[in-house]
Amino acid sequence: MPPYDEGVRAKLMSISTATLTTALFKRGFRNTFICGISIINANAPRMVGPAYTLRYIPAREDLDHIRVFEDREHPQRKGVEECPPGHVFVIDSRKDHSAASAGGILVTRLFKRGAAGIVTDGGFRDTPDIGKLPFPAYHAAPSAPTNLIRHHAIDVNVPIGCGDVPVFPGDIVVGDGEGVVVIPLYLAREIAEEAFEQTVFEDFVYDKVVEGSSIFGIYPPDPEALQEFDAWRRKVGR
Amino acid sequence: MPPYDEGVRAKLMSISTATLTTALFKRGFRNTFICGISIINANAPRMVGPAYTLRYIPAREDLDHIRVFEDREHPQRKGVEECPPGHVFVIDSRKDHSAASAGGILVTRLFKRGAAGIVTDGGFRDTPDIGKLPFPAYHAAPSAPTNLIRHHAIDVNVPIGCGDVPVFPGDIVVGDGEGVVVIPLYLAREIAEEAFEQTVFEDFVYDKVVEGSSIFGIYPPDPEALQEFDAWRRKVGR
Amino acid sequence: MPPYDEGVRAKLMSISTATLTTALFKRGFRNTFICGISIINANAPRMVGPAYTLRYIPAREDLDHIRVFEDREHPQRKGVEECPPGHVFVIDSRKDHSAASAGGILVTRLFKRGAAGIVTDGGFRDTPDIGKLPFPAYHAAPSAPTNLIRHHAIDVNVPIGCGDVPVFPGDIVVGDGEGVVVIPLYLAREIAEEAFEQTVFEDFVYDKVVEGSSIFGIYPPDPEALQEFDAWRRKVGR
Amino acid sequence: MPPYDEGVRAKLMSISTATLTTALFKRGFRNTFICGISIINANAPRMVGPAYTLRYIPAREDLDHIRVFEDREHPQRKGVEECPPGHVFVIDSRKDHSAASAGGILVTRLFKRGAAGIVTDGGFRDTPDIGKLPFPAYHAAPSAPTNLIRHHAIDVNVPIGCGDVPVFPGDIVVGDGEGVVVIPLYLAREIAEEAFEQTVFEDFVYDKVVEGSSIFGIYPPDPEALQEFDAWRRKVGR
Amino acid sequence: MPPYDEGVRAKLMSISTATLTTALFKRGFRNTFICGISIINANAPRMVGPAYTLRYIPAREDLDHIRVFEDREHPQRKGVEECPPGHVFVIDSRKDHSAASAGGILVTRLFKRGAAGIVTDGGFRDTPDIGKLPFPAYHAAPSAPTNLIRHHAIDVNVPIGCGDVPVFPGDIVVGDGEGVVVIPLYLAREIAEEAFEQTVFEDFVYDKVVEGSSIFGIYPPDPEALQEFDAWRRKVGR
Amino acid sequence: MPPYDEGVRAKLMSISTATLTTALFKRGFRNTFICGISIINANAPRMVGPAYTLRYIPAREDLDHIRVFEDREHPQRKGVEECPPGHVFVIDSRKDHSAASAGGILVTRLFKRGAAGIVTDGGFRDTPDIGKLPFPAYHAAPSAPTNLIRHHAIDVNVPIGCGDVPVFPGDIVVGDGEGVVVIPLYLAREIAEEAFEQTVFEDFVYDKVVEGSSIFGIYPPDPEALQEFDAWRRKVGR
Repeated sequence: MPPYDEGVRAKLMSISTATLTTALFKRGFRNTFICGISIINANAPRMVGPAYTLRYIPAREDLDHIRVFEDREHPQRKGVEECPPGHVFVIDSRKDHSAASAGGILVTRLFKRGAAGIVTDGGFRDTPDIGKLPFPAYHAAPSAPTNLIRHHAIDVNVPIGCGDVPVFPGDIVVGDGEGVVVIPLYLAREIAEEAFEQTVFEDFVYDKVVEGSSIFGIYPPDPEALQEFDAWRRKVGR
Repeated sequence: MPPYDEGVRAKLMSISTATLTTALFKRGFRNTFICGISIINANAPRMVGPAYTLRYIPAREDLDHIRVFEDREHPQRKGVEECPPGHVFVIDSRKDHSAASAGGILVTRLFKRGAAGIVTDGGFRDTPDIGKLPFPAYHAAPSAPTNLIRHHAIDVNVPIGCGDVPVFPGDIVVGDGEGVVVIPLYLAREIAEEAFEQTVFEDFVYDKVVEGSSIFGIYPPDPEALQEFDAWRRKVGR
Repeated sequence: MPPYDEGVRAKLMSISTATLTTALFKRGFRNTFICGISIINANAPRMVGPAYTLRYIPAREDLDHIRVFEDREHPQRKGVEECPPGHVFVIDSRKDHSAASAGGILVTRLFKRGAAGIVTDGGFRDTPDIGKLPFPAYHAAPSAPTNLIRHHAIDVNVPIGCGDVPVFPGDIVVGDGEGVVVIPLYLAREIAEEAFEQTVFEDFVYDKVVEGSSIFGIYPPDPEALQEFDAWRRKVGR
Repeated sequence: MPPYDEGVRAKLMSISTATLTTALFKRGFRNTFICGISIINANAPRMVGPAYTLRYIPAREDLDHIRVFEDREHPQRKGVEECPPGHVFVIDSRKDHSAASAGGILVTRLFKRGAAGIVTDGGFRDTPDIGKLPFPAYHAAPSAPTNLIRHHAIDVNVPIGCGDVPVFPGDIVVGDGEGVVVIPLYLAREIAEEAFEQTVFEDFVYDKVVEGSSIFGIYPPDPEALQEFDAWRRKVGR
Repeated sequence: MPPYDEGVRAKLMSISTATLTTALFKRGFRNTFICGISIINANAPRMVGPAYTLRYIPAREDLDHIRVFEDREHPQRKGVEECPPGHVFVIDSRKDHSAASAGGILVTRLFKRGAAGIVTDGGFRDTPDIGKLPFPAYHAAPSAPTNLIRHHAIDVNVPIGCGDVPVFPGDIVVGDGEGVVVIPLYLAREIAEEAFEQTVFEDFVYDKVVEGSSIFGIYPPDPEALQEFDAWRRKVGR
Repeated sequence: MPPYDEGVRAKLMSISTATLTTALFKRGFRNTFICGISIINANAPRMVGPAYTLRYIPAREDLDHIRVFEDREHPQRKGVEECPPGHVFVIDSRKDHSAASAGGILVTRLFKRGAAGIVTDGGFRDTPDIGKLPFPAYHAAPSAPTNLIRHHAIDVNVPIGCGDVPVFPGDIVVGDGEGVVVIPLYLAREIAEEAFEQTVFEDFVYDKVVEGSSIFGIYPPDPEALQEFDAWRRKVGR
């Protein structure tokens, strides 16, 4: 089975980034959550998809003037038109949100082209408009200035860092209301399956805690709690 | 009279953190507001209660693995089960939100156990869930990764720093929509009473300013304004 | 024609800060957007007006005690009572939000006096109250402590820096849901007119992109797109 | 007696900034040491003198071009020619060392004009040259770019912040190998005298500690230690 | 054999912190080097010894006044008199160097008492004096103000964080001209032995590279290079 | 004439980075000096040469283990063996000095291979050894940990950012005791020539200022000063 397919995607759509980071931590991965960013549209759907990347380096005044966008090979514009449907557009902006990584028109275009979401460790412009799209967009802060002021688009779909997390093209990027986690492609199925099971278990624990149970003995569970979990699972049909 | 009792608590429930910091400043306290954190659930009730603390130091890979939670003496878990009802659980996370200070299950357990709120100078995980509880939780940023990645729980209920503010167990911790202030226990009654009176006065000033009054002569008040305030106070019955 | 009048103001009320920064960038201005601040009341009206400034330096314990506010020449208080209607009150707090730049009463007073908005690169106190006013207020973070703890008010209406952006008294300050941009007074009309036209064009592009158009050929536009834009403009009557 | 004269200066030349901050702390001053800067020329003489200030705001591209230096009223150039002999030139660069506050030629000119030293919370350029002058210069980091890139000189000899410390023109600025402390003018004599005495006492303590004494009983001193100190003082003639 | 004795100490005295971090990394330890600090006296001897710790929390104005030092139980003073000879005094200053962690007299006393060195993630005062002692002292920046301004000494010899590195009392702390590394006590012998061997090997590689050798085949070594290394080792008698 | 040859190199060897940034600023370049780094060996020769680059992204635990260095295609090792003589090895470490960009052996190898210098916006390890080489090495801070802990080497000789400055392979990189400036290749000759002339002029100004001249009229020069400069130039034969 491939490491990522529709079944894996469906599972990941129902798992929190918190649970995913724990499954990754158990395999030795400590640096998979992109710190310092948040979602613009809290009502957007969950975000799951393979990474398609854009790399910025710092701008240079002679290279980054307003006419560069006339070039269809400009990596930002080219990337927006080439990012495959279902993919997440991930931008390395060197954690600099003093100018925008992209704006409302390009984000809308990505949405229309069927992208699964967009992530930058910098900022977006036109955020009041982006906030109205049913499209998950994650950034560090609103940033009105055009990218040309600070960012020079140099590459598409190469390995990058985003918020100090390594992102390789094709890695599975998952976002929820908490933030964004990056899963190495080859582990996506394994992580999705384990985290899916863990989610069921934690839902059981939530139920118990809401009923007044102590966390001792159930989180983590002792043998008795595991039995009770099995019964609960049969009862709720999960 | 004890420095903190139900009457003091009731007064503090109606006073803003802004007014409290001024009363503390008049007594020479300049560093009582925890900067850099915000409330997750804006609809949660006010938070007032004595501090119960948890201290983290940086994690170490050989000590902080997933099985540590099986130990009922693990300070994070033990603290959550021991924090007395009515207390505020305050965590020293060294202002590091790259991994979580606690997650949804533990916060729910604290809520069920009757804690008054939870504060960290790091971040929480499962924040979409925490945001739905009628429970005040303050942090710096959402942080999906398990605490084990960055934080080693070492002590409960010792003096700590939280967001550069000193917090001693038993200090009175007050939170509103603006943030969190820490009052030395022995001053709680005195501060509550002065700030309560100041709140009544500032409500009068607001009324005046909304009616179009200049701030000169009323904020701070001249003798005439004080007379007018007395009349207003009798009229509104406060 | 003067660089700023009611007509310019009306145009600026309908233009995004993103579009304004691009018009300024074309004239060589790279540093006009105040990074690191956000609006408190998302439902407030747009903010447009000339800058009236307040300058803080760091506080000194012997000078900044609670009785300074009795002095009607205290620059913060004097500024609030002198800022002309229609102006934006802009505060240089040296990007330090560990104490407040101003609080709810003063902000309400400014609102009542007809100011167009208030901006600090520090923080405000009483933010839950400020958030209920129909008045745009921009800051870095809520900050309960009185300004006296960290800020010494020293001057009104002198050139300042606010969030690393130069602000001269009279510069035109524009704020929307994204943030705040500062336009040199002498350029206000020229920028407003160009950005107004650009806004119309970008609305056309949005329409096209929502309909499924590629950005190539329309953003920036080729001759064919320009023709189509002219037709659209006549059709929608803009 | 005036708060500052040659006698006060002579005393301050022999007192460490550490000892001065303690004398200031005893009077309630907590914020007098400029953090984050260091001396360029470790072999320069001590620095003592009244503050003469320069205030920068952020640069603006249309105002800050290479020809501004032709104007003899340009505040940076004017300040360098006007700063009185014996004074310390203190620059508010908003803690931004991405462009220079001044360079080798201006620093040399200040030295030749008899200034006592120069301090910025930004950076200097031509630091290899400045490092060879017998002249104390304090900054945050070397910074080759001309000030025009980031700093707009706006005022001379107004109150400023330097490294988060308030500096009023005429305040007494003292620098040693550790850093720079700012003493309110009216306290200069009182602080100098107390700190001078404290320096004698701490020299005695050093002697004792080097001989193997515990700090208990001597630092702070018990009555016996005070007697011993009196004897030591007579013996060494201080 | 105990994990630390004179033989282990002697080995560690000749190994660089760089080589130690690699040996620790091979065992899964990624966070053992204290970033952001440097040595004051570059001519001081190497530093090797078990950690003795001091923990600060933020200061509180009513608790941290000048007379606290009269109390022989004050943790800073007590720690300086109790730290065993051969130990390294390690201070948790929460990475805050706006006030001193300790000063010249206490550092001299530690030196006279036979301590192996002193480390803070804050700053020291009296650094010109400390820089003349033949004693390794590591800090982030010189800081003239007394600790009372920012730091409240609360505990000695408890687990702490220092510069984001966990430090348990008794851990072996090693410092060279590059910085400071913390080795869990139980691993000290094992790490010392492996790193000692690695140091011999890297000296061989240096020799080869200085002679003009490529790094390919020798760093890491292929079988031929290992043979050559054996020969070299016999020749130089190591 | 090519933009860079031995004559250009010779000129650049005698020009300060300060003077170069001004020549670049006159052509609209504001961002050419790499902030936040310094030279390790103050006695090393000046550094001039074309950039050869190495790009790091954040490390990933499964990819960055100790055995990767056995691969001769590992970009760090390959880069060190391929960087042409006379070139400057410039590393994009994302301004992260929590692990090393390179160490003493590789830097020595580069030196032996005839490189002109090495620059990172992170840190080097084995800095006490590097400090003894007659080879310019610039970094942010010493960093003992192996690069594998934080950095994954991904590319050689692609455009990068280094300390927020864009660096394209072949750009001319110049370093002196103040820091490092990056000159776009096509401008190298033009900048070198203008800055060379400016250096002669500023040497004249230094002479004048040392003799006691005001800066007014000579810096910038009025016509009389230009005449005097011409005379001086003939006299000193430059």
